[in-house]
Amino acid sequence: MFTNKTRIRIHYALTDQMGVVYHGHYAQFYEIGRTEAFRSLGYIYKDIEAMGIILPVVDIHSKFLRPAKYDDLITVTTTLREIPLHHKIVFHSEIHNEQNELLNVGDVTLYFMQAAGMKKINMPDELKEKLKKYF
Amino acid sequence: MFTNKTRIRIHYALTDQMGVVYHGHYAQFYEIGRTEAFRSLGYIYKDIEAMGIILPVVDIHSKFLRPAKYDDLITVTTTLREIPLHHKIVFHSEIHNEQNELLNVGDVTLYFMQAAGMKKINMPDELKEKLKKYF
Amino acid sequence: MFTNKTRIRIHYALTDQMGVVYHGHYAQFYEIGRTEAFRSLGYIYKDIEAMGIILPVVDIHSKFLRPAKYDDLITVTTTLREIPLHHKIVFHSEIHNEQNELLNVGDVTLYFMQAAGMKKINMPDELKEKLKKYF
Amino acid sequence: MFTNKTRIRIHYALTDQMGVVYHGHYAQFYEIGRTEAFRSLGYIYKDIEAMGIILPVVDIHSKFLRPAKYDDLITVTTTLREIPLHHKIVFHSEIHNEQNELLNVGDVTLYFMQAAGMKKINMPDELKEKLKKYF
Repeated sequence: MFTNKTRIRIHYALTDQMGVVYHGHYAQFYEIGRTEAFRSLGYIYKDIEAMGIILPVVDIHSKFLRPAKYDDLITVTTTLREIPLHHKIVFHSEIHNEQNELLNVGDVTLYFMQAAGMKKINMPDELKEKLKKYF
Repeated sequence: MFTNKTRIRIHYALTDQMGVVYHGHYAQFYEIGRTEAFRSLGYIYKDIEAMGIILPVVDIHSKFLRPAKYDDLITVTTTLREIPLHHKIVFHSEIHNEQNELLNVGDVTLYFMQAAGMKKINMPDELKEKLKKYF
Repeated sequence: MFTNKTRIRIHYALTDQMGVVYHGHYAQFYEIGRTEAFRSLGYIYKDIEAMGIILPVVDIHSKFLRPAKYDDLITVTTTLREIPLHHKIVFHSEIHNEQNELLNVGDVTLYFMQAAGMKKINMPDELKEKLKKYF
Repeated sequence: MFTNKTRIRIHYALTDQMGVVYHGHYAQFYEIGRTEAFRSLGYIYKDIEAMGIILPVVDIHSKFLRPAKYDDLITVTTTLREIPLHHKIVFHSEIHNEQNELLNVGDVTLYFMQAAGMKKINMPDELKEKLKKYF
């Protein structure tokens, strides 16, 4: 299992008039979480794109348990539960506030694809190698 | 079954550097769709809030089939498949482009709650009455 | 003088916890306004980009007089006060609510540029021709 | 002169299909910058709101010199050039990338206001005291 923790401070733009973070913004928190998870492996998502590989999101499932609020310092815990065998990678995200209350749970599925031609491809071997030590 | 169709023009702010609509923005499209669905029933969401009732989102499941692109005029079809019995309401959204290709499918679950005290409540009877003729 | 009016419905995502539209979102309203102004001339901004021309924003000045609120149907009035002589184009935007109160005034300056090489270019002659009848 | 520096990592959601940060998002960078400037004074903006004081933005002027790009780690330098005498406070923001290139300059004017009644008020004395040592 490979896990990474990233912290995000909630700024005003993310709130809505219910006085909480707008539900649509959690997808950004998952994005930041998995980018930092890649970075902690020495893998910059920007470099993956420079190699002609893109990772479009194909499925998101979010559960909203408690609201995040303005100025909260939330922690996004991003977990890869298994090494992807083929083109599909699933990140599991849990978001907690500073009181360690679980606010939100999200599962995001992405595909590895060749940007040119938009063909599904397997996860690059180099990335698979880096992940192996965690499993 | 109660259904409403709403059209949204994709502006630049919604695109990302993959050249498509950023996946996190679809939650806004569902929101616009269900607001217009309420409006078509003569029910303004703003007025619901003024009555002290809020509808927080508790669950979203999105499937991304094809990307929406800049300047696309997308159609959000919002469907209520059953009259809510209690505090829970589920909207099913399908998003098509002008070529009538299905781009995205989303299911959004919200709870009817009393803003004061954050207590779950049943769907207001008046709204239930308005929905009855569709079922 | 060339003027276009476009209407935008404020959805929940645009509000913040002050109960009004977040100030940072007005740039999007100006963008929608000038895109629709171009469209009314028979000029689709998407087609300009397809010709290898981009229009980056180089300057924005916004004045916030009154807040826009959730569910407001605002009108963006976009005006071109003079035909651009060279690479620079300035759009003046005024935003009113349904009570015809002036909410916001914005001036947005953009440059016509060749995407390849990022070189400033003059406004395309074809667009200049279309504008002439308004001046 | 009072100055604070804050760093922000550009995530995917902030980019647009020009391959750069969408111009409308810089207002958020200024917001984050001035919030952290307040925090460095021991002043949490959230606490100001809890005291019944709000700080609506009344004017923004932005100049866009070079684009910020995906995954850039930008530095927002927020400067208060003078202690506000009355209700008006002006923050000057400069944004640099990791190569120390100046990307953007912004001036944001806000008013101190009593939330109840929306009346302009002077900057709170306590905050004025904290600022004095910098001038």
